[in-house]
Amino acid sequence: MTNRLNAQIAFLQEIDRLKGILRATPIGDNSRRENSAEHSWHIAMYAMVLADQAKPEVRIDRVIRMLLLHDIVEIDAGDTPIHADFDAAEQEAKEQAAADRLFGLLPEAQAAEFRNLWNEFEAAETPDAVFAKSIDRVQPLLLNLLNGGGSWIEYDVTMDQIDTRVGTKVIRGAPALWQHVRARVAGYFAS
Amino acid sequence: MTNRLNAQIAFLQEIDRLKGILRATPIGDNSRRENSAEHSWHIAMYAMVLADQAKPEVRIDRVIRMLLLHDIVEIDAGDTPIHADFDAAEQEAKEQAAADRLFGLLPEAQAAEFRNLWNEFEAAETPDAVFAKSIDRVQPLLLNLLNGGGSWIEYDVTMDQIDTRVGTKVIRGAPALWQHVRARVAGYFAS
Repeated sequence: MTNRLNAQIAFLQEIDRLKGILRATPIGDNSRRENSAEHSWHIAMYAMVLADQAKPEVRIDRVIRMLLLHDIVEIDAGDTPIHADFDAAEQEAKEQAAADRLFGLLPEAQAAEFRNLWNEFEAAETPDAVFAKSIDRVQPLLLNLLNGGGSWIEYDVTMDQIDTRVGTKVIRGAPALWQHVRARVAGYFAS
Repeated sequence: MTNRLNAQIAFLQEIDRLKGILRATPIGDNSRRENSAEHSWHIAMYAMVLADQAKPEVRIDRVIRMLLLHDIVEIDAGDTPIHADFDAAEQEAKEQAAADRLFGLLPEAQAAEFRNLWNEFEAAETPDAVFAKSIDRVQPLLLNLLNGGGSWIEYDVTMDQIDTRVGTKVIRGAPALWQHVRARVAGYFAS
């Protein structure tokens, strides 16, 4: 058991570094950029609160677990803002290597369990992963509405780009939520 | 449904402020104090990783939900460091008022569900709440080991005080984990 606990604690200590990974979106009071650890908490709360927006087959507790660990690879691979230019293949390779190293700190069976959950999120095919991705895409929009435009201003984003880059993803997992949030965002861009 | 979503989004926007509530413990690299939102993420990960330290009757997914929302009242009531002096009755009254206001932003049935989960955590009587409290007490110890002493130095804490203020709580929900972590902490104080 000592070896098992040593491995688990090594993982829990290493992932503390997610608190230092900054995202494109500022927090609500616009005082600083959001970090990926507090973002992961916020979207886990989104999943809890907006559970009834999910299709009936979605298991919210699996979605919460998926969202809690979905950004851990950023400790090695960094965050890639949705409106920024980046090499998708290169980023994918970095994230796979990060998943190998970080989840590999855990005891073997647990490493496989976490890795599988992360793989499932990335593939965005199962109902749980599709809903998790929807939630993950919606939160930065609502944050930008709160902080006064945030990363939309920085990246000179248009409503068309939001429809293409965000809307098409959110609509798959949470169509009624998208309709509601899109109207709010369109209001911002029209003003 | 629009009213329901408006209420849920108002809550999700309001709790963004948890990212600005600072705790006594610095993050691992000692660059700044941890905030309560990223702390909530970290201990939810603790619950996922250390699930096999819980008694068999503990339902980890309920523990995760409890931990995700346990600190939300700090938005109004502030954080009370375990080693600091404060008026417990006054703090309790502040937290009850905060829970009324914050969970009260949600649709009625959901407000009651979240409030009950928070009440259960606070009462620390059910197996789920006892385990959640254990995890919540252990994380700052491991963080102080990572950051080089952190809030122990600031509050001039002794090993006896850790045994009394922390150990007695952790041992209730996770006795083997306490044995392991206590040895590490005692190593720090002996050096």
